[in-house]
Amino acid sequence: MTIERTDVLIIGGGPAGMMTGITAAQFWPDKRITVIRPEEDALVPCGIPYIFGTLGGTEEDLAGRAPFLAAGGTLIVDKVASLDLDEHLATLESGRQLAWERLVLATGSTPFVPPIPGRELDGVFTVIKEYDYLDELLTETLPDLKRLVVIGGGFIGVEFSDELRKRDIEVHIVEMQSQLLAASFDSDACSIVEQKLRDNGVFVHTSVTVKQIAADPSGKKVEGVRLGDGRLIETDAVLIAIGARPNVDLARSTDLTLARSGGIWVDGFQRTRQRLDVFAVGDCAHKQDYFTRQASHALLASQAAAEGRIAGMNLYALRLPRANAGTIAVYASQVGDLAFGVAGLTEASARQIGFEVFTGAARLPDHHPATMPGTHEVYCRLIFDANSERLLGGQIIGGPTTGELINIIGVAIQLHATATDLASFQFGSQPRLTAPVHPIVAACGEALRTRTRCAQTPG
Amino acid sequence: MTIERTDVLIIGGGPAGMMTGITAAQFWPDKRITVIRPEEDALVPCGIPYIFGTLGGTEEDLAGRAPFLAAGGTLIVDKVASLDLDEHLATLESGRQLAWERLVLATGSTPFVPPIPGRELDGVFTVIKEYDYLDELLTETLPDLKRLVVIGGGFIGVEFSDELRKRDIEVHIVEMQSQLLAASFDSDACSIVEQKLRDNGVFVHTSVTVKQIAADPSGKKVEGVRLGDGRLIETDAVLIAIGARPNVDLARSTDLTLARSGGIWVDGFQRTRQRLDVFAVGDCAHKQDYFTRQASHALLASQAAAEGRIAGMNLYALRLPRANAGTIAVYASQVGDLAFGVAGLTEASARQIGFEVFTGAARLPDHHPATMPGTHEVYCRLIFDANSERLLGGQIIGGPTTGELINIIGVAIQLHATATDLASFQFGSQPRLTAPVHPIVAACGEALRTRTRCAQTPG
Repeated sequence: MTIERTDVLIIGGGPAGMMTGITAAQFWPDKRITVIRPEEDALVPCGIPYIFGTLGGTEEDLAGRAPFLAAGGTLIVDKVASLDLDEHLATLESGRQLAWERLVLATGSTPFVPPIPGRELDGVFTVIKEYDYLDELLTETLPDLKRLVVIGGGFIGVEFSDELRKRDIEVHIVEMQSQLLAASFDSDACSIVEQKLRDNGVFVHTSVTVKQIAADPSGKKVEGVRLGDGRLIETDAVLIAIGARPNVDLARSTDLTLARSGGIWVDGFQRTRQRLDVFAVGDCAHKQDYFTRQASHALLASQAAAEGRIAGMNLYALRLPRANAGTIAVYASQVGDLAFGVAGLTEASARQIGFEVFTGAARLPDHHPATMPGTHEVYCRLIFDANSERLLGGQIIGGPTTGELINIIGVAIQLHATATDLASFQFGSQPRLTAPVHPIVAACGEALRTRTRCAQTPG
Repeated sequence: MTIERTDVLIIGGGPAGMMTGITAAQFWPDKRITVIRPEEDALVPCGIPYIFGTLGGTEEDLAGRAPFLAAGGTLIVDKVASLDLDEHLATLESGRQLAWERLVLATGSTPFVPPIPGRELDGVFTVIKEYDYLDELLTETLPDLKRLVVIGGGFIGVEFSDELRKRDIEVHIVEMQSQLLAASFDSDACSIVEQKLRDNGVFVHTSVTVKQIAADPSGKKVEGVRLGDGRLIETDAVLIAIGARPNVDLARSTDLTLARSGGIWVDGFQRTRQRLDVFAVGDCAHKQDYFTRQASHALLASQAAAEGRIAGMNLYALRLPRANAGTIAVYASQVGDLAFGVAGLTEASARQIGFEVFTGAARLPDHHPATMPGTHEVYCRLIFDANSERLLGGQIIGGPTTGELINIIGVAIQLHATATDLASFQFGSQPRLTAPVHPIVAACGEALRTRTRCAQTPG
């Protein structure tokens, strides 16, 4: 069999791989760009929970490959069987062989399943990002489902709980920490989201572990979840959503270095340690936190896409300002019409890693006057470093503009904004589109004001 | 009569005055803060067009004074008859006398009426920001109104046209420039908004002047508008919305310097030239453009509020980073469900003032997958300085997130973001809240990509 040639070979066609491909095609128009992935159609990962409610169908959640193809890229549906990094050669399961100049690993992640007894029973699911698996879940399991236990109170667990509750299923969500979303939000914001879920009829169980997934008399199928405090929640199915681990089997078959986090070690341009012509992006790549350089375990499609852009722009020549500065973790979600988002550090995490902080919060309508139709309340909380006044993080709870409000905070962190910068900034205000005073300005003002007062009060 | 004492005296209770008052009360808690304004209840200025449609009542558009009163401020309903800046004394129309330590002029602006013959006829209106004037317009003129001509195709003209069209009134909008909103948007965006207005049934007349407002046989009441090209548009009423001029009568009665723009000259802390204890904020204060230091004529409530915050924070001691860097002009609006916003320079204005620029645009859904309910298309266009790569301006056309998308662009300009910064930035993405790829990132990528290509192509 003849060896086929490409210039840039990308293994994996999720957000990281496709974004690398699109960016590479844009920035290196003379190069041939190829993506290999196991499925013709890939899913939008963050859309998966919505397949089971709002969207109502797996086929409604397809990630477009049109932009990549339009940019001149080639898509191969296949799997890589083996890699020879010295020879710059990939052998596919079909037997095809591809030679490359630059290789990009974008192999993603797999849901983590902790060693809970009973995890192998029928009726226990994880969020595997594969069309067939999810389509079967939707079309075969869901129609008969009356009760569901979601293990894990992070973003995915919360989104699934909310969506499945809309189908009138009895939903329980179980979280080991004292609050849902505790890794992402400070306590006051967690409480608001938790209450909204409860109002929608979801049973929330916090500060409790899962001891066992119990089987029915046949011993094969799930019948309940036994909690650490002894309670049994009867259920037809269990969804485990407590995180994911990088897919690094392919990388492990080579001499590439893995980080202690489990991901493939990469430099600021997403290049692997030993091989400057081999890149890794997305969930399979090691991430460091923007503030501490500690490993970051926030596996986000948006972060994966950002890494894809960085790799794509640096494939054939480095561009210093286009390096990965570390993960800030900008994300948002929604329960019913209540949206919530976070960027950067929470107050708790900032203090824990050693920052002295000051904070400010504000609560405002998102239209003005508040008599405007469609007005939601926006809650904004900002955390600043006490020494430099630099913004460390922020949390928003609000309506449809929450996603972009959180992006403002993300941009401000990345551009090193201080409280004083933001407090005197110009923001647009328009009755039907925004608050009368921008919530970020209001929260900054509050932070500076209370800080000044603290400084004036001895002790 | 005894002289009453306050510490900070603010003349004018619109957005600039009230924001100065609230900020002063927060940052200088030991000081007495007093606002004088002619009305008990003031209107939200940018809400005024919505009184005539969406809100349906003048009393629905009241600006809250609760935050100012809650912060400990005092509101006096009165007018200032005379000022003695040497004696630090204001005499009110009621005869009361107030002494101050710091004086803030926030006297606003008045609609500009050009010398069009017939402008004095019954049925010719301007957007005077007074409760009684607008309430009369709403309750007495509007119920019988069948046809309206709006003179001026800026934001206010467009908003009024859209709102009044909702009442099934025949609305004509007349603009001298070749497109509506031509001062704010580049041509492609103007066309989209113009088409939307037309789709909603508004008659749009561009590239044409108004020669005369014609009277009915009585000679007293408006009957039509005669255009420069000879056409006559028959109408029951005319709204003139072509800008506003600073109210500086009070300032003129003192030795304060006025800028050639017509506004009160202020330094970067909103202090007047001769008197470091006298400030001016909002529409009555001179504004300079962020990029050129030329006079800026964008009179925006949001800019007024930003100036109020700056004055409030600097009343008793200057804070270097809390200075006014100049007007960027961040604003947005909506016609039907089509929102549009702008921050900074357009491509046309950037080239006109001498920048070499490169630009990029992108068009994306504002949810993902685009099958999500409530998905709008977002169009984003960014303008960069070719030498420094710094962001000079941007335009967004989209749905409900447009206001905050424009604020991201505003923040990025103020923090000196470059195209490369933004192209590799982390943005959150969430199916129900944002685009799959952030429109700003996509437009940046496009700008860099086409620029690289241009650079590679000789000539």
